[in-house]
Amino acid sequence: MTDPRADRPAALIFDVFGTVVDWRSSVVRELTAFRDARGLAFDATAFADAWRGLYQPSMEAVRAGKRAFTRLDDLHRESLMTLLERHGVTGLAPHEIEHLVTIWHRLIAWPDVAAGLARLHPRFILAPCSNGNIRLMVGIARTNRLPWDAILGAEIAHAFKPQPECYLRSCAALGLAPSRVMMVAAHNGDLDAARGCGLQTAFVARPTEHGPDQTTDLTATSKWTIATTSFTELAHTLDC
Amino acid sequence: MTDPRADRPAALIFDVFGTVVDWRSSVVRELTAFRDARGLAFDATAFADAWRGLYQPSMEAVRAGKRAFTRLDDLHRESLMTLLERHGVTGLAPHEIEHLVTIWHRLIAWPDVAAGLARLHPRFILAPCSNGNIRLMVGIARTNRLPWDAILGAEIAHAFKPQPECYLRSCAALGLAPSRVMMVAAHNGDLDAARGCGLQTAFVARPTEHGPDQTTDLTATSKWTIATTSFTELAHTLDC
Repeated sequence: MTDPRADRPAALIFDVFGTVVDWRSSVVRELTAFRDARGLAFDATAFADAWRGLYQPSMEAVRAGKRAFTRLDDLHRESLMTLLERHGVTGLAPHEIEHLVTIWHRLIAWPDVAAGLARLHPRFILAPCSNGNIRLMVGIARTNRLPWDAILGAEIAHAFKPQPECYLRSCAALGLAPSRVMMVAAHNGDLDAARGCGLQTAFVARPTEHGPDQTTDLTATSKWTIATTSFTELAHTLDC
Repeated sequence: MTDPRADRPAALIFDVFGTVVDWRSSVVRELTAFRDARGLAFDATAFADAWRGLYQPSMEAVRAGKRAFTRLDDLHRESLMTLLERHGVTGLAPHEIEHLVTIWHRLIAWPDVAAGLARLHPRFILAPCSNGNIRLMVGIARTNRLPWDAILGAEIAHAFKPQPECYLRSCAALGLAPSRVMMVAAHNGDLDAARGCGLQTAFVARPTEHGPDQTTDLTATSKWTIATTSFTELAHTLDC
């Protein structure tokens, strides 16, 4: 290769839940506020973990081809209804249900995200490649002023990660070969699927995504293109 | 209606070619520079107008269901090859062809756009609803620092305006009823199709989009929700 920039990606695409935003703290905080304002009684942390616990199962029917592509907002609503019933919470008004579903639109980014993306944006096209739908991603971006160039991922691909179509159609939407795109994620499994599609990979450790007792994805478990611990360090590694 | 905000849109979606960017001046300027640097001889203005002239016809096979959805970058490339041959321009290298195709990624916004969108963005979700593909829209956004929240329109809808699916799927991606979305365009026909889908409408006059002798779309030809002459005036009308 004589072009020194040949290995340099043209775009970075990002996992969002866990990688860009601290979903767990955000959901617990909002559930707690709602519970207390409404005079309800349930364990907000257990509820948040159970809600996230239904995340992967909720996408399985779509991945298996048994159900048409469904936006994550709708899957979140279905999981919420299941959990409300399980926790004996009844009689919520439609606007209250909507307030709870859109907690996921208001998730707060990790502290290093704004500074890191601001440094990366002049040099790289930046976009989420999340299983979250476009409206959900727009909510998170507006909540945190994220400088995305587009919203890629599941809704434009009509496929959920780790299905290859989700990565490949996101690259195609940018008019880029997968080798020119770097997937950024806090989850080794996500990067494994992306690498399988030919993308470059960057691991950003988020060792408290699941709380203080997290046991998974504490470190990079494979030789990713880059392994780091923050978006600012990622920017530094990419000479930004 | 007791809610005073009931008529207020939650999102504004924008036509881009002509409405946001002055495509004609931009294309003529780049074609002229390329022609002179390459020592070629053709009328850059006539070439630009002919290229744009093939725009609507190039989408017709897709609209008629005779051809699978095709990104505008690819249609632009096909039209370019037709015109190069017609103008007797031969022997261009692949990277030169690509340079010409991506002229459309580098179109310059009208002077009022940046200030208008900056005022609108805190209050409304903003997104292009163009027949341009995602990568093309990303290029224009990065060239002009446009604060889009997402890239909607033809590529996410797999349909070209004025097909209803293009407007309706853009609204659906935002999780909004069409009545909560306002289409902004310099073309009465675009607004007519959007209104037919239930969207609110804003006409922004661009009387020199086609040059000094423009005869079409000089003024609003119907009672749109708003009719104005700049994005800053649009922001003012919407109390921003």
